[in-house]
Amino acid sequence: MTQTPRSHGRKSIAASLKPRDLMEETRLARAWTAQVITLFPQAFPGVLGESLTGKALKEGIWQLETVDLRDFGEGKHRNVDDTPAGGGAGMVLRPDVMGRVIDHALGRNPGPLVYLSPRGRRFDQQMARDWATLPGVTLICGRFEGLDQRVLDHYRIAEVSLGDFVLTGGEIAAQAMLDATVRLLPGVLGNADSTAEESHSDGLLEHPQYTRPAEWKGLPIPDVLMSGHHGEIAKWRRRMAEDLTRQRRPDLWSAYKGRTDGKS
Amino acid sequence: MTQTPRSHGRKSIAASLKPRDLMEETRLARAWTAQVITLFPQAFPGVLGESLTGKALKEGIWQLETVDLRDFGEGKHRNVDDTPAGGGAGMVLRPDVMGRVIDHALGRNPGPLVYLSPRGRRFDQQMARDWATLPGVTLICGRFEGLDQRVLDHYRIAEVSLGDFVLTGGEIAAQAMLDATVRLLPGVLGNADSTAEESHSDGLLEHPQYTRPAEWKGLPIPDVLMSGHHGEIAKWRRRMAEDLTRQRRPDLWSAYKGRTDGKS
Repeated sequence: MTQTPRSHGRKSIAASLKPRDLMEETRLARAWTAQVITLFPQAFPGVLGESLTGKALKEGIWQLETVDLRDFGEGKHRNVDDTPAGGGAGMVLRPDVMGRVIDHALGRNPGPLVYLSPRGRRFDQQMARDWATLPGVTLICGRFEGLDQRVLDHYRIAEVSLGDFVLTGGEIAAQAMLDATVRLLPGVLGNADSTAEESHSDGLLEHPQYTRPAEWKGLPIPDVLMSGHHGEIAKWRRRMAEDLTRQRRPDLWSAYKGRTDGKS
Repeated sequence: MTQTPRSHGRKSIAASLKPRDLMEETRLARAWTAQVITLFPQAFPGVLGESLTGKALKEGIWQLETVDLRDFGEGKHRNVDDTPAGGGAGMVLRPDVMGRVIDHALGRNPGPLVYLSPRGRRFDQQMARDWATLPGVTLICGRFEGLDQRVLDHYRIAEVSLGDFVLTGGEIAAQAMLDATVRLLPGVLGNADSTAEESHSDGLLEHPQYTRPAEWKGLPIPDVLMSGHHGEIAKWRRRMAEDLTRQRRPDLWSAYKGRTDGKS
């Protein structure tokens, strides 16, 4: 497999290079890279171009490349799909077309090859953390009835699911997984501590949050949060997170208890 | 709670009304309505404007309205957030601002009020089916550290989660849930049978799909699919779906066995 140089977030380097510029250029060349194979390249970056992920994209902390599946289609009409063998509703993406686009994509991005499919392993925070440590990832967005099984077998493609529901295509799933992953890259969130207490960071759901005004519709902010006792506040938040997790997610609670009991 | 008339997908009606036009106008007035409260209205419809969901939007089968949270902000800078009571990273959406935007939204859409949050009940195909039977839904997209707890308590807002991972905001989650729901509305998919055999429709993952060419990289399409025996094909597909579900998702398999054993 030949590796062609990856494109950069920044197109050119100024002539008057300082050490800092070079460093930055090196970082850009090594920026975390998402490659998305899709029939709807115009749908990207979409929401990923806004807010923190959009800022990080502009700063070159990560880069996003789309590969238009249509460009690899068959014949004058660039057909990419055909009817299912054995009959049935919908259309299936052709193996020859998918093979060409995957060969092209593999030459550009060293990250793992992932097909977004409701049959796959469910995406979760741990998978986002794992992806964030890799050089990048290549996501294949299905449409219609999905990919020919031989493509999945031949390339040993990992199937990953956003959840137990069916979407019209993989594009929104790709955006969700990229959002969850990119925000974990160093430098994307303003404060490194922001992920420490959030849901699923330590196996618990997040404690309730409050802000000004101190009273709203007769409802006050809990006294402990206004006390200034940092130790008491931390204890209260922990207890609330544990209560919430036990009530709402017995599955997460069991796993959490298993881990913390083992430690003590 | 007063109900103001909802806006239509179509802005005006031609002067020369025929029965068909009136029928269509009635249908539009009753179109399934998604209302999204967000700081990033420009991110909509996004992917939902493409493909089948986009076609259905143009046809008025559903309509999408955004409510810009910023319009309800405080003071000259339209502030919507403040620091967490008790300290900690990030910002929390203010209860007074959220109260104003929710009161506005409740007057426009009779659907349930849902806050997209990793602490919520997990979205799944059954929830999509339920939502598709309602007049619509109002989705609140959080950003930062989320909503003040008093807002959730006061309005008894349902929390729904896309999955066990954290996003920078609720916008992509909203798009995923709307995509999964809208495709189940009558008339959105070209063929009413398209959802019959897909993953999670009957508690099983979907069987493998194949299409032309009959041989690719030395791999043939399984003989049974080329046999023309519809009964054998249906049996093979069922067996493959069952095998795949048993191997990949013991949780779904147990639930499926529980249901089907009860029936026999």
